[in-house]
Amino acid sequence: MRFCVIGAGSGGRAFAAYLSSKGHPVNLYNRSYTRICVIKKKGGIKAKGELKGFFPIDLITQNLELALNKVDIILIVTPASAHKSIAKKIAPYLSNDQIIILNPGRTFGAVEVQKIITEERGYFPIFIVETQTLMFTCRQLKKNKVKIVKIKKSVDFSAFPDKHTFFINDTLNEVFPQLNPVENYLQMTLNNIGMLLHPTISLLNASAMDYGRKFKFYVEGATSRTCEILEALQMEFRKILAKLDLKQINFCEWVEKSYGFKAKSIYHAIKEIKAYENIFAPKQLITRYFTEDIPTGLVPMASLGEFLEIPTPIINSVINLSSILCGIDFKKEGRTVNNLELIDYIRKQMKVEDILEIQESQKTQIDA
Amino acid sequence: MRFCVIGAGSGGRAFAAYLSSKGHPVNLYNRSYTRICVIKKKGGIKAKGELKGFFPIDLITQNLELALNKVDIILIVTPASAHKSIAKKIAPYLSNDQIIILNPGRTFGAVEVQKIITEERGYFPIFIVETQTLMFTCRQLKKNKVKIVKIKKSVDFSAFPDKHTFFINDTLNEVFPQLNPVENYLQMTLNNIGMLLHPTISLLNASAMDYGRKFKFYVEGATSRTCEILEALQMEFRKILAKLDLKQINFCEWVEKSYGFKAKSIYHAIKEIKAYENIFAPKQLITRYFTEDIPTGLVPMASLGEFLEIPTPIINSVINLSSILCGIDFKKEGRTVNNLELIDYIRKQMKVEDILEIQESQKTQIDA
Repeated sequence: MRFCVIGAGSGGRAFAAYLSSKGHPVNLYNRSYTRICVIKKKGGIKAKGELKGFFPIDLITQNLELALNKVDIILIVTPASAHKSIAKKIAPYLSNDQIIILNPGRTFGAVEVQKIITEERGYFPIFIVETQTLMFTCRQLKKNKVKIVKIKKSVDFSAFPDKHTFFINDTLNEVFPQLNPVENYLQMTLNNIGMLLHPTISLLNASAMDYGRKFKFYVEGATSRTCEILEALQMEFRKILAKLDLKQINFCEWVEKSYGFKAKSIYHAIKEIKAYENIFAPKQLITRYFTEDIPTGLVPMASLGEFLEIPTPIINSVINLSSILCGIDFKKEGRTVNNLELIDYIRKQMKVEDILEIQESQKTQIDA
Repeated sequence: MRFCVIGAGSGGRAFAAYLSSKGHPVNLYNRSYTRICVIKKKGGIKAKGELKGFFPIDLITQNLELALNKVDIILIVTPASAHKSIAKKIAPYLSNDQIIILNPGRTFGAVEVQKIITEERGYFPIFIVETQTLMFTCRQLKKNKVKIVKIKKSVDFSAFPDKHTFFINDTLNEVFPQLNPVENYLQMTLNNIGMLLHPTISLLNASAMDYGRKFKFYVEGATSRTCEILEALQMEFRKILAKLDLKQINFCEWVEKSYGFKAKSIYHAIKEIKAYENIFAPKQLITRYFTEDIPTGLVPMASLGEFLEIPTPIINSVINLSSILCGIDFKKEGRTVNNLELIDYIRKQMKVEDILEIQESQKTQIDA
């Protein structure tokens, strides 16, 4: 199998090195030259950590057409907020039966990419998959280097539409045995953990980050009282999932699965995660914590809440204030059940009585 | 004239000393003993600053009935969030034609006190006044001391109902020549400056305050980006005032009036106010900045916005997140046009076409 990795940040480098280590030919694409110039000069990536060594890359390029030529699997390893523009750029060069994997998809990543490819190419036989989280804990280093701190043992994924999931699993399993198929796409994509912590902790430390003060993002930035807002946010997510008969993987469950210990609250969990201990806050306010996690996490959840008639005052409050801070209309820019035309898809997951109730209430509003 | 000062914090002490300095008999009441025990022992207050010296106080007591006996003017000098309970406690001991002054009233303070006294005593000939801001810049010191940094030159006030304002002005002017009557009560009470800065700056520094980190509240806590939220908040206030044909006194105008310089934005104004330079943030999260300014400032504004059908997403966002942080349902606890039965009063200030439009829209909602 031949791979194309889109994005040469830490995650893209880790993927490219990993695939090369398994003997697969890899093309590595990056939009800007600075991130790939040394990789190109050296002909490959130098990894440290769980995966060590120099790993040759077949093609290192800023040319998407070349990067995508004759590949079987396309790994998109960029902030989810870039999925839209990447989908548009790759659409002309896609060929039948390619598999696109979003690492990770955040909420509704595969739907967004699917929709754009259909707009650009019409119906097109292609498979789109999103993972729940990045497969590596890694850090980009200078030149052509990457530090792969950890290759995760189990990473959930699902295709959209999800009838493709098990078929794709057979293909992927050989290369990525850690990928774990999730039958229901909504079950996976709505359990996006990134949107829970990042924007809200940033908001409650907004002045310090904007002032450029050095502090530990989780240790100092997530106090017992500010974690109450995370609990309230999680409760809103839970109500949305429950309305769709989906199970919420709450933060404490996720921590137990990922880090192997039990905690009684989000606050206690955050305080005990060793990996969080030395993470410093970004020294600027506007980062992916807002620009990625809001439009591809909180905004889709808010739109789903609105469609299901579940009030989401806390989600909305975080979106509203962050929009002003960043000067971006996230509700307009972000993924929603309306702009992704997901309403019929969501209805299939709903109980008949809930559909009828919402139809009735919408009818009343229109009459009024 | 005989005075009663309720509250022996910095403001109450400043008032008591000021009135004593003018030769008026003063009773000083405080709920807790610790604040008044040394004053009682010494028989008066020791002031430094613009007003200097020892000022005897006639009666220093925890007994409200005694404190209110035969006084002409009652000065309430407590956080506005305490007005409700104080009104209830003083009601039984009030006598005809007394003047109650709330220092300051925040938004709708006089309405709230008026309503409670009417509930407790039925119709009762009394005058209730609120000031826009505290008449003194002062700091409580240990024992029986107070530092009066500044006696302000001009402080707006208005009675509720405002037909009493000019009549009361004649009485008050002799003692408080700096009091400046404002003809329209709503014009004054809706231009409450405290609600603009305190809760939002606290919210955007919530983690640091909860963590107990030492930082300068305005210098570090109000950055250019976080001040964008203050501008957005102010814009929502402006729309509400405009709908009632009232003039907003925006922050820059207020700064020019209070501090004598022009600034082009809230951010620039805050940075140039000398008095703000060395103010440190409270080393705990839950303070008057939330518990006073939200229920007696942002909540009434949000309720007025809702009544006037003016969206207030930013006000609501600050209230929602602060409610979770403090564990207090501010929308339920705070002053609103509904719980103060102010709707008819507000209507008198509205244009006929706006009243008709809102009636029409409410009718449609009820039909639905």
